[in-house]
Amino acid sequence: MSKKSQGSWVESANHPETDFPIENLPYGMFSRKTGDTSARIGIAIGNQVLDCTLAAEILGADAVPGFLRQGDLNGFMAQGASVRKAFRAKVTRWLSPGAAEASALRAALVPQSDVQMQLPCAIGDYTDFYASIHHATAVGKLFRPDAPLLPNYKWVPIGYHGRGSSIGVSGQQIVRPTGQIKAAADGAPPEFGACRRLDIELEVGAFIGAGNALGDPIPIAHAEDHLFGLCVLNDWSARDIQAWEYQPLGPFLAKNFASTISPWIVTMEALEPFRVPAERSADDPQPLPYISSPQDRSRGGIDMVLEFSLQTEKMRHDGQPPQRLAKSNLRYAYWTFAQMVTHHSSNGCNLQAGDLFGSGTMSGPAPSEAGSLLELTSGGKVPITLANGESRTFLQDGDVVVLKAYCESSDAVRIGLGECVGQILAARH
Amino acid sequence: MSKKSQGSWVESANHPETDFPIENLPYGMFSRKTGDTSARIGIAIGNQVLDCTLAAEILGADAVPGFLRQGDLNGFMAQGASVRKAFRAKVTRWLSPGAAEASALRAALVPQSDVQMQLPCAIGDYTDFYASIHHATAVGKLFRPDAPLLPNYKWVPIGYHGRGSSIGVSGQQIVRPTGQIKAAADGAPPEFGACRRLDIELEVGAFIGAGNALGDPIPIAHAEDHLFGLCVLNDWSARDIQAWEYQPLGPFLAKNFASTISPWIVTMEALEPFRVPAERSADDPQPLPYISSPQDRSRGGIDMVLEFSLQTEKMRHDGQPPQRLAKSNLRYAYWTFAQMVTHHSSNGCNLQAGDLFGSGTMSGPAPSEAGSLLELTSGGKVPITLANGESRTFLQDGDVVVLKAYCESSDAVRIGLGECVGQILAARH
Repeated sequence: MSKKSQGSWVESANHPETDFPIENLPYGMFSRKTGDTSARIGIAIGNQVLDCTLAAEILGADAVPGFLRQGDLNGFMAQGASVRKAFRAKVTRWLSPGAAEASALRAALVPQSDVQMQLPCAIGDYTDFYASIHHATAVGKLFRPDAPLLPNYKWVPIGYHGRGSSIGVSGQQIVRPTGQIKAAADGAPPEFGACRRLDIELEVGAFIGAGNALGDPIPIAHAEDHLFGLCVLNDWSARDIQAWEYQPLGPFLAKNFASTISPWIVTMEALEPFRVPAERSADDPQPLPYISSPQDRSRGGIDMVLEFSLQTEKMRHDGQPPQRLAKSNLRYAYWTFAQMVTHHSSNGCNLQAGDLFGSGTMSGPAPSEAGSLLELTSGGKVPITLANGESRTFLQDGDVVVLKAYCESSDAVRIGLGECVGQILAARH
Repeated sequence: MSKKSQGSWVESANHPETDFPIENLPYGMFSRKTGDTSARIGIAIGNQVLDCTLAAEILGADAVPGFLRQGDLNGFMAQGASVRKAFRAKVTRWLSPGAAEASALRAALVPQSDVQMQLPCAIGDYTDFYASIHHATAVGKLFRPDAPLLPNYKWVPIGYHGRGSSIGVSGQQIVRPTGQIKAAADGAPPEFGACRRLDIELEVGAFIGAGNALGDPIPIAHAEDHLFGLCVLNDWSARDIQAWEYQPLGPFLAKNFASTISPWIVTMEALEPFRVPAERSADDPQPLPYISSPQDRSRGGIDMVLEFSLQTEKMRHDGQPPQRLAKSNLRYAYWTFAQMVTHHSSNGCNLQAGDLFGSGTMSGPAPSEAGSLLELTSGGKVPITLANGESRTFLQDGDVVVLKAYCESSDAVRIGLGECVGQILAARH
């Protein structure tokens, strides 16, 4: 049972199951489906969007930070946590029951059903980490049954660079990728064809706010100040392409055909009530000092439920909703986002507002907590039988995948990150 | 002996050793060191820069494409090869001996010594390939003496995503990175400290011009149309950090602390006289059909000399110039840039104007053609003795590294890509 929201005059924000009570207030970029369709920054509240440009027109330009007014979320992100916190306090006042601004601000609300969401900001560099030790172990087992976890895993927050250009927003349609696939016989020429082992990866995305100058690492004590907020991320993966291409420089075409994020960025302030200790067992080594701090140990983790569901073409045709296949939690992350920020910049690499970090597939210890089909089906060997009798190892054309995340606790008001939806289209030939 | 230039009224462009005769005409972004220091697009000619904004003011706005006038090289790049070729023809006329525009255009020339070069465009995604089979074999030998080349090498143009934010322009100063380094004893905790095996990688960078839509691969027959031009690229590498971190997802912090490019992008038109057949030996397999075309086989390669030189602090103090350590050639690339474009987009990945491809370390078959210190020193085991008696395995603080590239042939006018210079600063603690 979650705590009750402090409430808002936006009635839908008071529904106990809304993702967007007044305690959340995430940022996104939207355009109206009709009328003035210019892209604007909005704040989700209940089933509405508060239009930041319109709010400034109504309440006066000074009421809203310039970057938000002008639709430049990157600019706002770069200003860091204090500007963000100050504006959060202001918006919370505006939307609280009995606020003087209430009647005027009604005109700045747009129903979410009337808007088209876009990428929230210009994404600079995209880095994907590998922070779930359960995922690393499960995937390692498929390749190296005797030594699933590599010797560096418990020391290095492993990550690699991904592709920024192909990141899309929830609702994205993914053309099944084609690529080279290893021949069955060693030494025979590879085939070139449509991916047959198309998978999802259930991840959380973290957006960088304030950046750092090239050559200036971010100390672990300040790392959280550089985080703007989180979203849900599906890092689509072509497992057969990956298996053939990834040695020696890592995944490339197996990943860069598309990644999909949920449209709303939930700020670190909204996530505050859900912070938990970092995941470590008694026999795990302490992280090296540069990525270790008492604060990070005690509250570097985040208790966030993650789910993924599948809706086949037949289910859609039969009017059946997506079926949940797995439920996991961000708290299983062996490495915290603060550790990722500090590690990433520890060599002097400069992070910039709008950079996106992926958590890596966030699997838990139980089989039902797997964050990918690869894990759920033991490498494609054990098909999943769906409730309607269909079965899946990997994704088929027409499949819709829905990722969801939310935080709930008895001490806090439930907040959600919304959905990250993608559909597979047939390969082009 | 190269062919003689057709000549220009810009006298310095007629010097036989200039990198920038009228046959070259590369693009860059510059600002004057004094007066109006706004960033502008320029074209190098001899030891001068033709200021595109000023040229438009002098000859009329219609004379210069809008994007160039406005300092937006990405916009110009995105327009593709035909717009670029048309403007090249126009600039060639303007700068030819006896041109009607000559006296007026003198006012649009700025000496290169009076400008500060910047990154030529906004670099979107950066992908580093691994196209020299000699480099892949030499590095593979250090790890796997019996099977240096992995089974996928001759089929897959291996590449991985790099970091865009830390790419700088020639003259960049590189703070020696710190990072995790594997302990000497297996199982002992890694150390965290300054990199001790800091290396260079002698590469060629290729800029994408016109892009492709997500989901729409670029056929090999059209791949060259998507290339804008080339520059010299130093992909600085921290070998000790790399050795510990790179499994299983590839290089990360070992590379992303800095990459440096030369300031001028030499267009594909200027490189036309230097095209050569792609590198293949009789017993190499034919590339799969999607990355194979008669045109690519016969002229996919580029005959371009690549050099790197080192100047230690002592050499600088003693007034000695940089000493050349290796000389290689881009024609050794096993994979052509056209094949990289088509392979990169073969899964539907969208390329965008301003994306940068690295060729990968461009080593040749001879020991003196190694494109990295790792190779030149057999993995750091055989130090290089410099002419002044100093020695090096990897880079020391204060070292200046100069990369250079140029094309020459008896049938064509010599053109150069200019220099890519970087200096190592001590680690910060």
